[in-house]
Amino acid sequence: MDIIDALNWRYATKRMTGEKLPQEKVEKILEALRLSASSMGIQPYTVLVIENPELRKQLKAVAYNQPQIVESSHLLVFAAWTDLTEKHVDKYIDNIAKIRNETKESLSGFKEMMMGTVNSLTPEQKHNWAARQTYIALGTALSAAALEQVDSTPMEGFIPEEFDKILNLKEKGLKSVALMALGYRDVVNDTLAKKKKVRRCKEELFIRL
Amino acid sequence: MDIIDALNWRYATKRMTGEKLPQEKVEKILEALRLSASSMGIQPYTVLVIENPELRKQLKAVAYNQPQIVESSHLLVFAAWTDLTEKHVDKYIDNIAKIRNETKESLSGFKEMMMGTVNSLTPEQKHNWAARQTYIALGTALSAAALEQVDSTPMEGFIPEEFDKILNLKEKGLKSVALMALGYRDVVNDTLAKKKKVRRCKEELFIRL
Repeated sequence: MDIIDALNWRYATKRMTGEKLPQEKVEKILEALRLSASSMGIQPYTVLVIENPELRKQLKAVAYNQPQIVESSHLLVFAAWTDLTEKHVDKYIDNIAKIRNETKESLSGFKEMMMGTVNSLTPEQKHNWAARQTYIALGTALSAAALEQVDSTPMEGFIPEEFDKILNLKEKGLKSVALMALGYRDVVNDTLAKKKKVRRCKEELFIRL
Repeated sequence: MDIIDALNWRYATKRMTGEKLPQEKVEKILEALRLSASSMGIQPYTVLVIENPELRKQLKAVAYNQPQIVESSHLLVFAAWTDLTEKHVDKYIDNIAKIRNETKESLSGFKEMMMGTVNSLTPEQKHNWAARQTYIALGTALSAAALEQVDSTPMEGFIPEEFDKILNLKEKGLKSVALMALGYRDVVNDTLAKKKKVRRCKEELFIRL
């Protein structure tokens, strides 16, 4: 499917049917997410992929009772690292060395550059930086879902602190920043299903220089 | 092209050939960007699409001299709104009413919900929120470029304050947050062109519940 057709087809689905997605569709969307770009390539986040109905019922209560939380097939919780340390950088360097069959010594310049970033940011800036990276992954996953003709809802309407408690994210060094529901649109009950897409026009969104 | 193949093909291109992209490819990537999801659908950003060589030379000097700034075909500057006010919301409501042929009165509940967000955030939170939305657009545009077999580089390595000055962004109520270079990879001079992609493995990136 063409990306423009796919993006025109998608919309932030407010009601879903509860029907389960084929596993291969889910895996394809997750693989696209895994391949997403991130600053320095470090992917400073974890994504929780939640099917458990009981758990989703609990999460719905702290997400303004939005029905997609339980009506989706899978609920993705994008959780960004709360810190960025030399340990994170070293683990990443190890992974590069392994995948590219390079020595850690040959990567010392890259490590130094990354440590410059680590040392220049306050803890709050580090989390904000990590949180932004999850939104690239979110944009990639939304595009991939649309191409697979899977409905999706990006969501910020939830109480992150409550999600963090329920999902034990603090002890994992994570904070929840955004959600993405995956499933099938309920065309009968979703009043948005038949409405035209609203976007700012090109002339307004872009400045050409 | 399949999205997984496209994402495996793409990488953060460090050197480009300077060759110009066909205009229809640029327009397609911009259209994908325009169709990107954003919180409440409000698209709180402007994207500068820069071809002017003189201007790009100036920008390169405040972007750690990264060659893609001038070697790319087009340089995109993602600039997020510095504020979110009732005026922004009203303009958006006008656009919805026009496109969907609805009355403003019928959208009063939606406006109220948005004003709740506007009034609950500090100025800094508003800009951070807007900045995150640009990263969804960045993720979408990176995916679209890869599908079009256009090389791209997402970039945070620049001095936003200097970009804002050169591009007069402050007077437009904007702050630069990320760049994206579009063009063709220089396979001879880009040492990254032939290296394997490094990504965290699924088992580590995802927690399944």
